[in-house]
Amino acid sequence: MKIGITGTGRYIPSIITKNEDFLEHEFLGTDGSTFANENAVIIEKFKSITGISERRYAKPELKTSDLGYLAAEKAIEDAKIDKEELDYIIFAHNFGDLTVGKTQGDTLPSLATRVKHLLKIKNPKCVAYDMLFGCPGWIEAVIQANAFIKSGMAKKCLVIGGETLSRVLDDHDRDSMIYSDGAGAAIIEANPSSGEILAHTSVTHANGEAYYLFFDKTYSNEEGSDTRYIKMHGRKIYEFACTHVPQAMADCLNESGRSIDEVKKVFIHQANEKMDEAILKRFYRLYNKEVPEGIMPMSIHKLGNSSVATIPTLFDLVRKGEFQNHKVKEGDVIIFASVGAGMNINAIVYKY
Amino acid sequence: MKIGITGTGRYIPSIITKNEDFLEHEFLGTDGSTFANENAVIIEKFKSITGISERRYAKPELKTSDLGYLAAEKAIEDAKIDKEELDYIIFAHNFGDLTVGKTQGDTLPSLATRVKHLLKIKNPKCVAYDMLFGCPGWIEAVIQANAFIKSGMAKKCLVIGGETLSRVLDDHDRDSMIYSDGAGAAIIEANPSSGEILAHTSVTHANGEAYYLFFDKTYSNEEGSDTRYIKMHGRKIYEFACTHVPQAMADCLNESGRSIDEVKKVFIHQANEKMDEAILKRFYRLYNKEVPEGIMPMSIHKLGNSSVATIPTLFDLVRKGEFQNHKVKEGDVIIFASVGAGMNINAIVYKY
Repeated sequence: MKIGITGTGRYIPSIITKNEDFLEHEFLGTDGSTFANENAVIIEKFKSITGISERRYAKPELKTSDLGYLAAEKAIEDAKIDKEELDYIIFAHNFGDLTVGKTQGDTLPSLATRVKHLLKIKNPKCVAYDMLFGCPGWIEAVIQANAFIKSGMAKKCLVIGGETLSRVLDDHDRDSMIYSDGAGAAIIEANPSSGEILAHTSVTHANGEAYYLFFDKTYSNEEGSDTRYIKMHGRKIYEFACTHVPQAMADCLNESGRSIDEVKKVFIHQANEKMDEAILKRFYRLYNKEVPEGIMPMSIHKLGNSSVATIPTLFDLVRKGEFQNHKVKEGDVIIFASVGAGMNINAIVYKY
Repeated sequence: MKIGITGTGRYIPSIITKNEDFLEHEFLGTDGSTFANENAVIIEKFKSITGISERRYAKPELKTSDLGYLAAEKAIEDAKIDKEELDYIIFAHNFGDLTVGKTQGDTLPSLATRVKHLLKIKNPKCVAYDMLFGCPGWIEAVIQANAFIKSGMAKKCLVIGGETLSRVLDDHDRDSMIYSDGAGAAIIEANPSSGEILAHTSVTHANGEAYYLFFDKTYSNEEGSDTRYIKMHGRKIYEFACTHVPQAMADCLNESGRSIDEVKKVFIHQANEKMDEAILKRFYRLYNKEVPEGIMPMSIHKLGNSSVATIPTLFDLVRKGEFQNHKVKEGDVIIFASVGAGMNINAIVYKY
């Protein structure tokens, strides 16, 4: 059975925060100490590694479920399906609906239910649930939709990845400059007129790696608050990703039966430009190849790292011919790949 | 392909809170008003409707993921499998890891990753994710495991339902007496020596019903805090459940091809005794039958409503011959059914 993506949508939040907006921040080390370098230097170094010059934050009145809804509406329209035919709404996120200035997330009801409510879908057989799998959540939700269709439980699924990381940031942490908000969505269908999931791979490394991304207090010793924020062991993640992601991608490509030379685009989680480039280089090295020109569209420069949302957002931009000179055409073999909290890695080899 | 449950486990927390422990609480109405009746009367009425006389709370040092881990260990042992053979760990919950006295939940990393970490499973191909589907989350996770096995993606899955509702309670809300903590787990396998999922049904009603269970502030007007707690429109849920759950169960039974007379046990989400009895009565009425004696084991009296954990906990107790005079034997047709936030309803017809 052929299973493919028949529509996509995105919601890119409207608030642009530039690197210079962090110039007045009091950045601190993990022990609360100040840095010898000025912020201008810290920011320049940050930019040279991550590639990020600006990122998007959602307006306070919009929560993650709202971003997901706005992306979902576009995906449904793009797929030209009747929303009442959807068998599943799967919402990948990590923190639930977050409110600016408050610490408590809200997952009651699930964000998928909230989206179904906003979409005014009446059919009770459209099952709505949330899934948490770190940044690779959207790809994993596509893999789950694929399983539901394969097993005969579903024909059409709406898969959403949405997050508002701007609301779990420690202002004293340099890594806070990485994160952003956004949502992307796709419709996965049985027997599409074109498009096919050829293979997929997922792994969870949960031994020493389980807490490479974690929730913890601010680096500031002066704030007595218990509030926790997204934190990461950046160097360890970098090394972990460079070691394990290329092999996971290669395992997936090999399983698909397609050759490395057929691959036309790689949509990789927009985590960090240097890391993504290193992953791609090592992936091609596994085939004794150089990285071809223009194979990896990168949206991180202007959109930052919006977790589960980076890949569906970027894919939607490219599909719709709205991203630089990147294009995909029918028959192209493309790879989706992600890495994040868990530590989870996954990949899909897809014939467009 | 036959897919069945080959092992189960539970963790029932050790702190017993009795109804009389609520005698000194200041219960308030939704508008912050006091009640005319004394607490003793309120509690007696509560008990006569819900059936609850005591409930379990987890010790402060244990979080939801710990409860899930303790239940998972037992399930793995019971199934006599090598934990390294697991293809999936699916953890159904609603609020992440909660800390006593703090409002912020923690889902970074996912609870499934935490369990995998605690179980010291090395195999990266064991994929660990969380899913949120209200109280019916554990049944839904079993349905997902079933789909993964059916589609060829997995052979053995660990499915956990765990929750610490005692940590999202508004002390001023009478409904807070309903909730409890706990965890249950099961191993789902392809081609078990006995046991088979015969049919399953899931629905999400997300129009007017989406916010029947929701997160909101305390009923006390005197507390200025923004902290939100689990809240429900009890009467609406009662009516919704009585209207929709019996039909969902009947749809599932009809799809299984088994007759109502073959049903030996119904494991229903322990939400409220009167409601569960009304659901069962209406279910049998759809077949013009009276409810048979001893068909519905009820653990709510002593264990309260631990959300996703009620069904796997109760099933484990009965399977292991540790629950009153309830027993299941090979070949028995049993039904699992649940209802909760979403509003979600699901059911599984299972040949034991």
